[in-house]
Amino acid sequence: MIHVVLLGYGNVGKHFQTVFGSTHGVAVTQVWSPSQSPRTEGQTQFINDLKDLKNADLYIFAVKDDAIRKLSQDLGFENRLVAHTSGTVGMKAIDAKNRAAVFYPLQTFSEHAKLDFESIPICYEAEYEADRELLQDLGNRISNTVQYVSSEDRKKLHLAATWVNNFTNHIFDLAKSYLEENQLDFDLLKPLIKETVAKIQEIDPHDAQTGPAKRGDVNTIENHLGMMRDPHHKEIYTLLTESIQQSFKSENIGKKL
Amino acid sequence: MIHVVLLGYGNVGKHFQTVFGSTHGVAVTQVWSPSQSPRTEGQTQFINDLKDLKNADLYIFAVKDDAIRKLSQDLGFENRLVAHTSGTVGMKAIDAKNRAAVFYPLQTFSEHAKLDFESIPICYEAEYEADRELLQDLGNRISNTVQYVSSEDRKKLHLAATWVNNFTNHIFDLAKSYLEENQLDFDLLKPLIKETVAKIQEIDPHDAQTGPAKRGDVNTIENHLGMMRDPHHKEIYTLLTESIQQSFKSENIGKKL
Repeated sequence: MIHVVLLGYGNVGKHFQTVFGSTHGVAVTQVWSPSQSPRTEGQTQFINDLKDLKNADLYIFAVKDDAIRKLSQDLGFENRLVAHTSGTVGMKAIDAKNRAAVFYPLQTFSEHAKLDFESIPICYEAEYEADRELLQDLGNRISNTVQYVSSEDRKKLHLAATWVNNFTNHIFDLAKSYLEENQLDFDLLKPLIKETVAKIQEIDPHDAQTGPAKRGDVNTIENHLGMMRDPHHKEIYTLLTESIQQSFKSENIGKKL
Repeated sequence: MIHVVLLGYGNVGKHFQTVFGSTHGVAVTQVWSPSQSPRTEGQTQFINDLKDLKNADLYIFAVKDDAIRKLSQDLGFENRLVAHTSGTVGMKAIDAKNRAAVFYPLQTFSEHAKLDFESIPICYEAEYEADRELLQDLGNRISNTVQYVSSEDRKKLHLAATWVNNFTNHIFDLAKSYLEENQLDFDLLKPLIKETVAKIQEIDPHDAQTGPAKRGDVNTIENHLGMMRDPHHKEIYTLLTESIQQSFKSENIGKKL
């Protein structure tokens, strides 16, 4: 049995509690959160004072990035395994009095959405071999994709995650605003959005690229630019169009040489 | 029975042939394509000469945008219902000797992907009421979402579709290139991409926005910029980050006033 203590009870903390709670061989013995009133729910004791922390195999931080260092310093014990769950913070942010680790789920967490944890990649890191084995074992119990990833590589994954999540979502937001300004319904685009993502599960996004920029269809691009009023929208449209053109131009040059 | 003739046999033409062929009350009597050898398959006659076109209720063009006008001029008959399937071309591109219409499926078509046609919005347009009724009826037989959309609105939908399909896909391509340069696996991002899109089926993309730009997390943004070598990637990152910041800043100001 792996005894886990969760520190922090936001979206990430709650999702971990749910998945560990229904996983064979794992028990969440305590949840620490300053905002929770002390109580016991099933096997889990809720506490709001760090002094009440008991012995466990692993302490998982599910707190904001900039709270990690201070919280690790405030722990009243030494030489135990303490992991944070951030994509961007180095492992060494965990105070050296404990055995530092990372247990990073590469996913976006909402309060209400149910997540299929099995499909979420877990990127872990630890200073000591025995700790790595424990984290690999714990990861395997909840996910089909568990990888040892260095702090440096984890930061790169987080950057790429920002592109595919934050930027993609913002593009949806811009498209919705544009349609609403024109009394058109964003729902009409949802099947297209689904298919856009379904496609790249099968084929390389580069091969999946379509549209006026890839075709070099200057007429459509000019028509599109004429249909946007917001100079900011035009600027993003132009830059992304140029970027697509460049990505296929260099390929064509490469093929010619 | 609605008798349909398809002109053009690329991805769109083939998908229409497949869906109409399995739809009650619809028959594809002919397919015209210069690249196909004359033959008969089931109920459908393949021809490569426009002179062989027979009478039908509806002629659907599934050809490139810039071929629509000329093809409509080359038709050897008059006063029949002729629809193109383009998102960007005006209805009047169909030569006036026939009754012009549009039958635009708002989706991206690949050769191999099987499509759930029921979920694909059909945006139609026609000059005459009786033709609109026929197109609405035909649309209803294959799709759950069939809307009369003017040429002007259709062009706006196509522009928004370019954003959510072309630009989103290009962002996936950029993220994949970045990870490959760093010997990291793009597959690790696929569950995140799926969840990003699943989220906006339920909630507004504006409310779904997360990440350093929205939080105003300047440290992470600067770290990210330091981790990209390609000045072009940095430029897109910066512009989209500013755009997210702006979209939440104006909201905050709005709330204060």
